[in-house]
Amino acid sequence: MKFYDISMTIEPRMAVYKDRDAKRPIFKAVASQPAQSVYETELTMNLHTGTHVDYPRHVMPEGSDSNAAELTPFFGTAVVVELADVEDAIGKADLEKQPIRRGDLVLLKTRNSLREDFDFRFVYLSAEAAEYLAHKQVRGVGIDALGIERDQPGHPAHHALLGNGIFIIEGLRLRDVPAKRYRFVGLPLKIAMVEAAPLRAVLIED
Amino acid sequence: MKFYDISMTIEPRMAVYKDRDAKRPIFKAVASQPAQSVYETELTMNLHTGTHVDYPRHVMPEGSDSNAAELTPFFGTAVVVELADVEDAIGKADLEKQPIRRGDLVLLKTRNSLREDFDFRFVYLSAEAAEYLAHKQVRGVGIDALGIERDQPGHPAHHALLGNGIFIIEGLRLRDVPAKRYRFVGLPLKIAMVEAAPLRAVLIED
Repeated sequence: MKFYDISMTIEPRMAVYKDRDAKRPIFKAVASQPAQSVYETELTMNLHTGTHVDYPRHVMPEGSDSNAAELTPFFGTAVVVELADVEDAIGKADLEKQPIRRGDLVLLKTRNSLREDFDFRFVYLSAEAAEYLAHKQVRGVGIDALGIERDQPGHPAHHALLGNGIFIIEGLRLRDVPAKRYRFVGLPLKIAMVEAAPLRAVLIED
Repeated sequence: MKFYDISMTIEPRMAVYKDRDAKRPIFKAVASQPAQSVYETELTMNLHTGTHVDYPRHVMPEGSDSNAAELTPFFGTAVVVELADVEDAIGKADLEKQPIRRGDLVLLKTRNSLREDFDFRFVYLSAEAAEYLAHKQVRGVGIDALGIERDQPGHPAHHALLGNGIFIIEGLRLRDVPAKRYRFVGLPLKIAMVEAAPLRAVLIED
């Protein structure tokens, strides 16, 4: 059994969305030896920093939040699709060639996975490609960028997926992962009434 | 396939260690509709709040931290042991009767699971019981309290386990979980250079 850890490491100098300082995690030592008998850290973090899942509420005032999220979809088949040639937006035509099946978690592996810093021109999912995935009835969609789209007006890719009960994972690291099928486990933190949650995500090759 | 979610819910009014205000999570809305086009939350949290794993560094200045932690031990067999009759400290004799095997993750289910608030007299693991588990070469030990011990001088149970490469999970919720064997998955957040990490933990009944 081989594991691929496809999560970003949360650390002070990590890449954050649009390099915004407000998105950087802040670490504070709140107890340390020898003055105290233990070490303890407090972490302040935007829930969209690092690898995370978006719930519908993120883009929809009436959308459901973490309280409505089931755990079952976070276990199951994932297919990593190789899109190394896409320079800008992933289109429907790019996905039509891929072995995507109903019920899949589709993980989009692009040139984004080659960079560690934040790329303002990161490859994103077009609205038509998101609609195509919704039509295919996939279970979830993940991408190797901190956004599934680049702040497109109205966030159409988010709406096409979240509005159809398809979860979104942003901030995956897929550089070392061959494009094929895996077992996926990615457990979001259990946080009440929020629009997103950080998660640790793993692919398992049996 | 049946799942038991054995994680605490992270929310403003959750139980925290010794009811200390500094341990309560703080939620801040940093973007909200309609003023912005998205909802976003920032969370400030002590890494020992809610369900979390302790790394050796928590109690040992020279102990290893999250950077040294492997993922493999977080997948595998867990055995839930019923200790409803223990009033104070779990002793070696309480564990000797239990079906604990080498390599197990041992989850201690006590009367702690019946309370939602913080109980200053929570059932904890005695040093001799921790040494017994280390001698049995278990893989990890989890408990349904926010501490595996009650701030005992020198933290002997932490040392007996962490010093022998056995990980500790604190803050489990086991009330609804029958005492038997399960498949365990509990993924800690991937945070660099810290002494603990929050995790979502699940038991799977095949």
